[in-house]
Amino acid sequence: MSLALSLAGKAQGFTSPNPMVGAVIAKKDKIITKGFHKRSGWPHAEIEAIKRTDSRSLKGATLYLNLEPCCHWGRTPPCLDAILKHKFKRVVIAVKDPNPKVNGASIKKLRKSKVKVDTGLFRKDAEELNEVFFKNMRKKSPFIVAKVAQSLDGKIATCSGESKWITGKKGRDFAKSLRDRYDCVLVGVNTVLLDDPGLEGKKRIPFKAVIDPDLKIPEESCINKRHPEKLIIFTSLSKKKQALEIFPKAKVFFLKKDSSGWFCLKKASKMLFKLGIMSVFVEGGSETLGRFFDQKLVDKVYFFIAPKIIGGKRSLASVGAQGIKKLNQAVELDKIEIRRIGTDLCVWGYPCAGAGLPLTRIKKFR
Amino acid sequence: MSLALSLAGKAQGFTSPNPMVGAVIAKKDKIITKGFHKRSGWPHAEIEAIKRTDSRSLKGATLYLNLEPCCHWGRTPPCLDAILKHKFKRVVIAVKDPNPKVNGASIKKLRKSKVKVDTGLFRKDAEELNEVFFKNMRKKSPFIVAKVAQSLDGKIATCSGESKWITGKKGRDFAKSLRDRYDCVLVGVNTVLLDDPGLEGKKRIPFKAVIDPDLKIPEESCINKRHPEKLIIFTSLSKKKQALEIFPKAKVFFLKKDSSGWFCLKKASKMLFKLGIMSVFVEGGSETLGRFFDQKLVDKVYFFIAPKIIGGKRSLASVGAQGIKKLNQAVELDKIEIRRIGTDLCVWGYPCAGAGLPLTRIKKFR
Repeated sequence: MSLALSLAGKAQGFTSPNPMVGAVIAKKDKIITKGFHKRSGWPHAEIEAIKRTDSRSLKGATLYLNLEPCCHWGRTPPCLDAILKHKFKRVVIAVKDPNPKVNGASIKKLRKSKVKVDTGLFRKDAEELNEVFFKNMRKKSPFIVAKVAQSLDGKIATCSGESKWITGKKGRDFAKSLRDRYDCVLVGVNTVLLDDPGLEGKKRIPFKAVIDPDLKIPEESCINKRHPEKLIIFTSLSKKKQALEIFPKAKVFFLKKDSSGWFCLKKASKMLFKLGIMSVFVEGGSETLGRFFDQKLVDKVYFFIAPKIIGGKRSLASVGAQGIKKLNQAVELDKIEIRRIGTDLCVWGYPCAGAGLPLTRIKKFR
Repeated sequence: MSLALSLAGKAQGFTSPNPMVGAVIAKKDKIITKGFHKRSGWPHAEIEAIKRTDSRSLKGATLYLNLEPCCHWGRTPPCLDAILKHKFKRVVIAVKDPNPKVNGASIKKLRKSKVKVDTGLFRKDAEELNEVFFKNMRKKSPFIVAKVAQSLDGKIATCSGESKWITGKKGRDFAKSLRDRYDCVLVGVNTVLLDDPGLEGKKRIPFKAVIDPDLKIPEESCINKRHPEKLIIFTSLSKKKQALEIFPKAKVFFLKKDSSGWFCLKKASKMLFKLGIMSVFVEGGSETLGRFFDQKLVDKVYFFIAPKIIGGKRSLASVGAQGIKKLNQAVELDKIEIRRIGTDLCVWGYPCAGAGLPLTRIKKFR
């Protein structure tokens, strides 16, 4: 199962909207074949594994899968049929597929056909690997990741506005590679105006969404000049004509400002979901990240922390907007991990009130 | 030498203004006696070790010391004389005593008397153990430690001002035990007004200094009610009469405000040093810590970080005041250590432009 999980993970960033799945087939304690789902629309893991060996050897074998096999027609036929056809003796499944079209139905059918089914092995790892997919299925909305790069005292710019660079090169490189894992990178328009970022990944060009109520984003900005077809703009209805004129290739969504002059980010997320965007990587700035936290939309956080102190009451805080009023409303993080990346520290974890994932109690730092 | 260092460390917090020293005496690869300096005014480590064995066995033995022995009269006679009297064959010293009255003089005299002397073993550890003493001797001013207890995003209070508690019980307990290591705890008057802290250690009552230009500190505050003789107030000359009337037992110092309405904290530190205070533990709040960083006075930092997010552009930042303007002026930390303490993270290190200690390049996180 451990191998199935690591095979599945090889396709991280390429299977959306599908989950990552790995399959390992063993007989008499020997692995006879394996495979993984490489890209959405391509064959599923089970099929990849099966087609790499001769059909006769599969009879009586055990199939290890990190996710319940599908029993419905998608872009490929149901894997369940292939499993039944090859007369497996036993199927070991880490976790049930949360897709309402599956949700245990394949397991039931396998058992009805006298195939031994065991579930739950490496369940937590399997859920974590496909955390995006689980959120998508359970909440019908994208998995939202907040990324912060700050000083030890929580600043992202000095009092004079200087912000490049606070974290080191290795930390920034790792942050860039994280973009490859998610379907869309999102920033507020101020970040575009100040930094003019490209928002590209290391291996891929993700969608690049900008929250821009007053349509201040310049036509010549990097994110419009490079791959304008990947640009998504959220602006006000009053800017419709202008937006469609200046950004003909971009996808433009129109929202109403609330009393605080901001958009309902839940609505924006749902719009992205309808567009097929299963995960959003929110990179800033201070106000945008703060609004995502205020609206309790964040499923996972990455804090890159440089071992330096900026100080200053007028310096820009990493998480702005309203914030919490009472300490018992603070966004507590669960399942925290800490790593050194170059000279920086990277802390990641899951807001307790966040993802659709079942939550364990706060673990101690490892 | 490792044993000498750990013996020395046993007296942490009790030897000021003296350094911590441990002594181990060995002969033919066997430890025959050991001792450490337990408290200022009490016998030095060498004497503690020597008196625990019979004089004859010391002849031809090796003495291990984490600091060069003294050759001058203080509250006790010079240890050098005792070492020479007992005919040691060899003395191993981790580091030279930076005290101008010693500074290699004992080593010279030992060599002149045909005692073999080796230096430099565990030198860095020996300097770090006595970092307070080294700063005192090299800069004639107290060693200043900044302590911050904040959320992951660098906040010490919510936008409504709630601040108790951000970090967990174990983290706060550890922070309290740190007070035992330093001679004086220092806060700004706003911290007294908001939190009314006791500022006491776990084993000791340190001096409790308050920066209070307008003498707003209430007579009935905890730090005045409990051990008023340990209270130190920095206020303006215009408050002299009032201060001496309300706080007859406290030590009150008068300073002039600068153009920003604040005191020169370097002057305040020197005043504390003259009072025999060798180390200051600055606990807040935002403005006071910020001023210490602005005035480049911090020798060591402890950041206690709770794995939670407070957010809000109006929430109180951990390090306030002016802050740096250009990123290349940021206070970079060297020799960083990270530990988990309960659910919190504790990061400590040394500002590169800080202590009198020689600095190594930024180490990677361990």
